[in-house]
Amino acid sequence: MTRFRLPEATIRELVEGVAPPSLEQLDGDAAVRLFAAAAWSCIPEPGDAVAGTAREALGDVRALELLVDGAAPSRWLAEAGDVAPDLVRHMDAAVDRWRPRLDDARVRRAFEQGAAWGQTLLSPLADEWPAGLDDLGPHAPAALWVRGSLAALAETRRSIALVGSRAASGYGEHVAMEAVEGLVRHGFATVSGAAYGIDACVHRATMAVGGTTIAVMAGGLDRLYPPGNDDLLRRVEREGAIVAEVPCGSTPSRWRFLARNRLIAALAQATVVVEASVRSGSINTAGHAATLGRPLGAVPGPVTSGASAGCHRLIRDYGAQLVQGADEMRALVDGDAMPVGLDARAGAEETRVLDALSIRQPRDADDLAARAGMSLAEVRATLGLLDLSGVVEQRGSGWVRRATPA
Amino acid sequence: MTRFRLPEATIRELVEGVAPPSLEQLDGDAAVRLFAAAAWSCIPEPGDAVAGTAREALGDVRALELLVDGAAPSRWLAEAGDVAPDLVRHMDAAVDRWRPRLDDARVRRAFEQGAAWGQTLLSPLADEWPAGLDDLGPHAPAALWVRGSLAALAETRRSIALVGSRAASGYGEHVAMEAVEGLVRHGFATVSGAAYGIDACVHRATMAVGGTTIAVMAGGLDRLYPPGNDDLLRRVEREGAIVAEVPCGSTPSRWRFLARNRLIAALAQATVVVEASVRSGSINTAGHAATLGRPLGAVPGPVTSGASAGCHRLIRDYGAQLVQGADEMRALVDGDAMPVGLDARAGAEETRVLDALSIRQPRDADDLAARAGMSLAEVRATLGLLDLSGVVEQRGSGWVRRATPA
Repeated sequence: MTRFRLPEATIRELVEGVAPPSLEQLDGDAAVRLFAAAAWSCIPEPGDAVAGTAREALGDVRALELLVDGAAPSRWLAEAGDVAPDLVRHMDAAVDRWRPRLDDARVRRAFEQGAAWGQTLLSPLADEWPAGLDDLGPHAPAALWVRGSLAALAETRRSIALVGSRAASGYGEHVAMEAVEGLVRHGFATVSGAAYGIDACVHRATMAVGGTTIAVMAGGLDRLYPPGNDDLLRRVEREGAIVAEVPCGSTPSRWRFLARNRLIAALAQATVVVEASVRSGSINTAGHAATLGRPLGAVPGPVTSGASAGCHRLIRDYGAQLVQGADEMRALVDGDAMPVGLDARAGAEETRVLDALSIRQPRDADDLAARAGMSLAEVRATLGLLDLSGVVEQRGSGWVRRATPA
Repeated sequence: MTRFRLPEATIRELVEGVAPPSLEQLDGDAAVRLFAAAAWSCIPEPGDAVAGTAREALGDVRALELLVDGAAPSRWLAEAGDVAPDLVRHMDAAVDRWRPRLDDARVRRAFEQGAAWGQTLLSPLADEWPAGLDDLGPHAPAALWVRGSLAALAETRRSIALVGSRAASGYGEHVAMEAVEGLVRHGFATVSGAAYGIDACVHRATMAVGGTTIAVMAGGLDRLYPPGNDDLLRRVEREGAIVAEVPCGSTPSRWRFLARNRLIAALAQATVVVEASVRSGSINTAGHAATLGRPLGAVPGPVTSGASAGCHRLIRDYGAQLVQGADEMRALVDGDAMPVGLDARAGAEETRVLDALSIRQPRDADDLAARAGMSLAEVRATLGLLDLSGVVEQRGSGWVRRATPA
């Protein structure tokens, strides 16, 4: 039997090299479905909503068959039934752009290299699939290539994405490290993009305090990017997980960086921009978090530092919550941090009577009433309260303020 | 003829020493009214809303007569007619607290010292009265004692209050100076509280660039506070104005500092907290601005600096607008600063085709379509646009990206 013009045994063999534990007892159907998901991760560019909508309507397998068979766009639409007008409008162009990528060798190489690198392939059907990605709707990835621990990936259930500029300042890195430490202590994993600067600092700080961190790559997992973070990423692989939606051999192009950012936002429960200039890619990640309706935080910094200007703009103009550290970042998710009242001062009467009192010279209630601009009755009642608090004491017929409370 | 048990000639003489130009041709009535306003500035503590409500209902003159006559609270209420239930409830206590302060000598001294210091006395009836104060309603001051220039005071019509911690950092002072310079350049006066730290910096910076600044005092204008800012305040008097709602001889008590803050907020069109710890008095000023419905801004700073923690809390929990400098402060008032789009990037197609192009190796449209995951038609259209922008060029049958745009 053949599927997609390939012998089913071939499909099965390819898939077995990268299948996750939950699909260990692969039946033929499951193998074909996982193969189709992988193929869809090789053909359209990340975030192709027409592909997402077509796959949703037809299933990965049938959609791939139609593509392999060279079916006319009208046939896709006929099989898809009632679908979004967007799909109808864009189907022609979509098929045109998928065809140049339709190449057995390309898909086969993805599996072979994936297996060679010890990767696991997840599709939305796998138990290990991070549920957060489903919120991306038609923009959700078809599959996820994983290096490292699936258990670590599962910890994204309780995680915060911390991202920021490559050109991070000492301030930004300090804030990132402090925040990560507090988040890990409260059971959060971190998600970031492995770039130089803030991202690398987040991964490193997380592992330094024994936490779990997930790095999301823009290119294929055969080449860890950026090369200068190679050692760091190998450690993330050992202790956490590295994921990508594109197969081995895919270069980390600018477009894929932008698309990758939506995965960072979707994997984590909240996104925090630690330090970012206005042109930082992390602003794009913030935009994805906002689009997903996920909580978005930004750390302020000196207004004299361009490295914080992106954070300030997110707070000013885009409704990001100002967060000063781990507690306020956790509150983005748990919502249990109540603002503390600004004005924990003594009441007006207490302040005015205290103003009127001297430390040395005893003053009677009449005198205090004139000085405080209060009635005698108010002064007497207030003195009683202040006496209870131990901040005033009677001396002869008058009152003084205690230099140090009793 | 006598009023308030004083010969009217005495009243007139006292008032003439401090009357503003608009009341230069003082008729007897105007003199009596200004005298009554001044008396009310001597009797209740600042912000006494019962006094404000009673004065509003009865007029300063009649209210003072009732107080001098020792009228029962019921008589005040009978004359006041339909008034707020609050007045009814608090009238007894209010009269009790005003009586201890009712003292001819006290009021007379206020005028004499005021005249000796060259002060001007404004009541809400004077043309020179800053209209913003009326927004305080029953909490508005009865009168304003002014040292310096009434023309400067009039410039509060277009002014921003900049306030902050005494324990300012170099960062805070730097930001204050930069902001003031930009505000003055756009015709704004500044209002502040003359405290050490940010306040002093605001006054100083304003005058350094030829702007107008107003200092609002908590105590009487016979003693400029704090003493260390004496030279600065003398210069503010020469070039701007110093104001207080309490007469000479009033000490700047803690209560009066808190009450003074509402004047700062009410005089200016907007209030900005430049740098403040969570316990800074400037947070109280911010609260007044918010209560008045005036725009409130706060400048962020490093989260590692306690000196900015109050600003961050204002932004986080109290709806203050994050402001990074003069332009954004002006926008609080003028509302003309549009947020600039975050994502001024090239469109998705352009990015993807540029990703697919090489600088050295010409690639044809088919190749680019496969690399970019786009249809041939899309690639061709996009190449056309990129060619127009001068960022790509044709070489043989293929295309390359220009190292530097044409």
